[in-house]
This record gives sequence, structure tokens and C-alpha cells, in this order.
Amino acid sequence: MAEDFTVTPWEVKGDVDYSKLIKQFGTSPLDEKMLSRIKNLAGGELHPYLKRKIFFSHRDLGALLDGYETGKKFALYTGRAPSGSVHLGHLVPWMFSKWLQEKFGCDFYFMVTDEEKFLARNYTLEETKKLAYDDILDIVALGFDPGKTKIFVNTEYGKTLYTLGTMVGKHVTFSTAKSVFGFTNETNTGLVFYPNVQAGAAFLPSFLEKKDVPVLIPAAIDQDPYWRIARDVAPKLGFPKPAAIHSVFLPALSERGKMSSSDANSAIYTKDSPKEVRKKVMKYAFSGGQPTVEEHKKLGGNPEIDVPYQYLRFFEESDSRLKQIHDDYKAGKMLTGEIKEILVEKLNSFLEKHQAERERARDRIEDFILRD
Amino acid sequence: MAEDFTVTPWEVKGDVDYSKLIKQFGTSPLDEKMLSRIKNLAGGELHPYLKRKIFFSHRDLGALLDGYETGKKFALYTGRAPSGSVHLGHLVPWMFSKWLQEKFGCDFYFMVTDEEKFLARNYTLEETKKLAYDDILDIVALGFDPGKTKIFVNTEYGKTLYTLGTMVGKHVTFSTAKSVFGFTNETNTGLVFYPNVQAGAAFLPSFLEKKDVPVLIPAAIDQDPYWRIARDVAPKLGFPKPAAIHSVFLPALSERGKMSSSDANSAIYTKDSPKEVRKKVMKYAFSGGQPTVEEHKKLGGNPEIDVPYQYLRFFEESDSRLKQIHDDYKAGKMLTGEIKEILVEKLNSFLEKHQAERERARDRIEDFILRD
Repeated sequence: MAEDFTVTPWEVKGDVDYSKLIKQFGTSPLDEKMLSRIKNLAGGELHPYLKRKIFFSHRDLGALLDGYETGKKFALYTGRAPSGSVHLGHLVPWMFSKWLQEKFGCDFYFMVTDEEKFLARNYTLEETKKLAYDDILDIVALGFDPGKTKIFVNTEYGKTLYTLGTMVGKHVTFSTAKSVFGFTNETNTGLVFYPNVQAGAAFLPSFLEKKDVPVLIPAAIDQDPYWRIARDVAPKLGFPKPAAIHSVFLPALSERGKMSSSDANSAIYTKDSPKEVRKKVMKYAFSGGQPTVEEHKKLGGNPEIDVPYQYLRFFEESDSRLKQIHDDYKAGKMLTGEIKEILVEKLNSFLEKHQAERERARDRIEDFILRD
Repeated sequence: MAEDFTVTPWEVKGDVDYSKLIKQFGTSPLDEKMLSRIKNLAGGELHPYLKRKIFFSHRDLGALLDGYETGKKFALYTGRAPSGSVHLGHLVPWMFSKWLQEKFGCDFYFMVTDEEKFLARNYTLEETKKLAYDDILDIVALGFDPGKTKIFVNTEYGKTLYTLGTMVGKHVTFSTAKSVFGFTNETNTGLVFYPNVQAGAAFLPSFLEKKDVPVLIPAAIDQDPYWRIARDVAPKLGFPKPAAIHSVFLPALSERGKMSSSDANSAIYTKDSPKEVRKKVMKYAFSGGQPTVEEHKKLGGNPEIDVPYQYLRFFEESDSRLKQIHDDYKAGKMLTGEIKEILVEKLNSFLEKHQAERERARDRIEDFILRD
């Protein structure tokens, strides 16, 4: 079936229809029943990303919560391909993971895939490792519990990961990897093996603790093919199938789709200065407003396509404030310049704190690193 | 070109024509000039395996010796896919490596590929690791210098090997792996990656010492495809191209070809008892003798196809004694039963010492193991 959008681990293109994606990937929508279950187990509170359907889909979350209700703890697993330029979109599953860690007391495993970037791009391993440690500052800055958070850089954790990747790889033919990841005969054999490592780490908590530890993977939905592989292989290796919870993409500033690291004007980086943030939002953020102030006041803006409003859905914690902005903007009471100003202030206040924590993280990295 | 023999890392079949193989693989014959060069550098002595053309082919040995003559040390690298049943054929490159280590003062790197066996056969990793440690007893038993010998089991040395394998894998497409190793789309992606690890360890001495350390690989010629990959990739990674020196196969007892671990009657194992050795040689060793004693005395035997004689070429150190046996057997003065008896005694005396050293090795393994 031809779609007008593409979502793979390597590419997100077009105007993503998330309901279609749920059907295409065969995942389950996060429905009201599931949300209310999470709310009860989390102590009566839902993270804004759940209320706002930023996390919108899952695999096997019900079974995971069944176990949790009978006292079975679960672990969290997610990751990052290092680029040295973490942007706001990357933070979404991480901030959500932090909430899950707090509410459910989870160990959090975080993979930093220096070899993936080396294999897929024109970098040396020394370069990707340097980028990895720069990105780790952004992770640590978010305030995870150091006693329960284990960050690993793949080539430094290669003993365990090569073992897990080999275990998975035995059950994944080239044919399967080809159809799931779009590999060709010209794909390098390092990259052909790599998905086994990313999928294999879903078994890391069980492997390390030598008992069944169920895993929940919070990640953007483009990573789902890896979890499909992990779920297919799990019973053959005697590990529990990982559950997954999927987020939408933070849109690019200037268009729809996924915020990209490679187009500096389409993304706001965690290292951007207040001036850069202001410039990018004011200049590049796609507006759902009307061409003139007169028309805007008369017809109102369209929050559904307005990037500043969409960003506020990710970064404005207060539901009532967000609704007020939505309604005012839609009614034409709030102008494009005003909603952009609100976003600039919100992001700069977030980044001021984040950047301070990022600096503080430099001396704390070792508290989080998992090594062989 | 259709051949009446096949030599690949997975299969050795038919009556191998080693001169044809040199052309087919594009290696160089070990000629008299090269042998006399080795002899001079080794202090005036040649190992019987060199004199007898058991090592018969090489890649770039000249360049390696050029370096050695200007004071540049080289390292040795070879390996073993663990089966728990080391047979005499496996010992050939190892015994030769020991001589090289003594004569040239080389560090010796030995890879034990537990994951290869896991990926290619119906074993668990726990099983192949157990087999690995049993096979390591046979290596240690041969008397390598513990200060200069580094044995590593792949999944236990996975941090370094995953890094090296990844570096190689970036430059080896699936197409290349397919044509060099005969992979198909149904090959599992663990096995598709594996050759990068075996090839990558040819760079281990340089990687660990952070300077150019040339490597010589003594191994049976079926392993050459791995070294071709290593040599292709070396300049791209900034490592010296490994040199290789290739041995013929110790024939199977009952036929020509390569001694196999899977047919117990075609191989003599290092753990065989004197009685088993006697029975196997007497019952299964293919004879180049005549059907009756009378005919044998008249026509003589054919040492070229006589397996007991061929084995003596590998295990009788004395050139003059070997020549005597050859001539007597060919002249019909020595009967089939007699040459078999000589072999039985030779092997049992070798194995008696080897088995004692093998037991002594149990407490010494850790002196040899290289870990991440």
C-alpha cells in the first residue's frame, strides 16, 4: 500500500498519519482504559505526554502492567545514536522515561550507539565516541536516579552486547534483516549485524540479573522494527518479550515530519543560546496563523498545524494554560508573534536549567556508566 | 573452473591439488629461496613442516621478513573453533607456531571462536564456552611461552573484538561476504558478521599496542578467505596487512581430504587412549600397500597414498628415519603392519606426553587468557 509518509529507523518523511501507522506496524493504540490503568498505578497522575497522546501506541503494555500489579518490577530501555547535537525531539522519550522511573521505580538502561553512527556515516569510532560522551551530558542533565540508571556506550560495553547480539543474530537471517530494515546486498556487514545489538539489549536486564526482568521501551515509533525483532526472538532465547510504548515525533520547526539533527534551522538543540532559540522560532517556526493581523483576528489561527503551538504541547506542563493558549490562538485573540514569544520564553527557561544541569553532569557521568 | 576438490572454511572435499590451490587462491608457493631465508633467520634450522612442504604457501612473508631483518618484531595469530575434540590435524599449525615463537621471539595470539560454533551449529553459548576451555588445554599443553601467548575466547573478549569486527565490517558488504564465504540470504546475521571478527583480530596486536605490529598467520589453507578480507581492509583502517603461511591438511585416516572432527573413525583425537589409537590406525588407516604380503614384497608400497606414512611425515621429527621408512616401504622391505606399528608407537608416545601436559595445563590456563 503506497502511503504519503514513510517511517523507518533511517527516515521519517511526509505528514505522518499515526492512526494508519498503528495499523501498518500492528501496534495497539493507548486507549482510555490503558491510560486510566497507568494513572492508577502511577498514584493518580498521568504524565502530560500521555494525556496529550504524545505517547499514543504500545505493544504488550497490558501484560507488563499485569506483572507489575502482582509485584513484578520492570526495567526501562531506550537509546541514542550519538551526533553531538541533541535536539528537543530527542528529549521526549527520555523525559517520559524519567517519569516512569520515578513512578514505577524502574531501572533504566540507556544505549549509546557509537558503532551505529560509525557504520552508517562517515565518522571514525574515536569521533562517535566523543559525540557519545557529549550526548550523555544531556541524558544525565535530565535528573535520572544514578542508582537506577545505567548508560552504556556500545563499543565500551561490547563484551556483553556482542554476546547478546550474537544470540539474537543466530535467529535473524539476512532475508529478515533485509525486509525489516531495508538492507541491500551493498549494505556493510557491520550494519547488517547492528540491529541484533539494539534488539539484544532489550534482554540486558534479564541477562545481567539472571532472571526474567520484563522490559518497557519508551521510544519514538520509528524504532519499533528493532523491538519487533526482539519480540520475535525472545521466546527462542528464553527471555521475556519486551513491551514498547511509542511516541509521535516532535515536528521540525519549518515543516511537518521529524525534527532533524542535520538541518540546523529545523531543530532546536539543547546547546542553543537564548538568542539562537529566539531567532529560530521567530524566523523558521511554521505558523498556523493568518497572513495579516486583520485576517488573523477575524478568522483565528490553526493550532493543529501551528508549530509553536505543537511545541507547547511538548513543553508547557500546565493543561489549563495550554488550553487557554489553544483557545485564544484559535479564536484570533492571540497573534502569531505572541504565541511564538510564549514558546521562546518557555524553551529558554527550560534550556537555561538544562544547560546548567548539563554542565553539572560533566563530573557525574561515571556514576551512570555501565561497563563490562 | 570446475575442480575435483573443494576448499572453503566450511568444507574440504576431494583430493586437494595444492599447486592448483595456490593459483586458485592467488597465494605464493614457499620456494627454496624463501625457505633458505627463513632458515638463516631462524638460526640455521628449518622446522620439519617447512622441509617437508607441509607448510607450502604464503602471502607476503617476504615483506614480513624484510621488516624482521631491520629489527621489526612480528606477532603470530591463529585460532580454533571449539569442538571439545581436538584432533592431530588441529595441532599442526599450533606446533609450527610454537617453533616460530621460539625462533623469532613472537607474541602469539590465539582466538577461540565459541560464537562461531554457536552460530553455525546446534549448540548453546554455554556449551561452546565449555568446549572452548577444554580445547584450550590442548593449546597450553604444547608448551607456549606464557609471557608471550594470549589466548582469548571470543564472547569473553567481545569488547575488543566487537570493536575490531565493527571496524572491518564497515568495509565488507554483504555482497562481498556472500561471494567470499558462500553466504545466502538465509544465512543468519550473526554468522554474516562473524568473519569480520576473525579477520579483525589480525589487527589485534597493532590495536592493543597502538603501533604497527605486523602479523603472520600460520593456519591451514582453508582459512585463507578470512585473511584476504583482512588484507583488503587493512589499508582502509591504517593497519599493516597480515602475512599468512598456509599448511596442507593432515589427511583423514580412512581417505584423502581433511581429518574431520565429526567422524570419530577418520580422526585421532588428543584424548584418545593408546588402545583407541592402535585400533583406529590398524583398522581404518588407508594403506598404500599391496593386497598380499607376496605382492607387497615384490611390488613395494606407495608411500604417497599410504596414510600411516603420510602421518609420519607430520609426526616423525627425524628426516633420516623418515627417509628410511619411505624407502623401505616403497621397496617392499617394510610391510603395512610394520609401518602401522611404527605410527602407533610414534603417536602413542606423542599423546602420552601431550595428555600429561594437558592435565598439567588445567591449573595454568589463566596464565594464558587474554580478557577485556
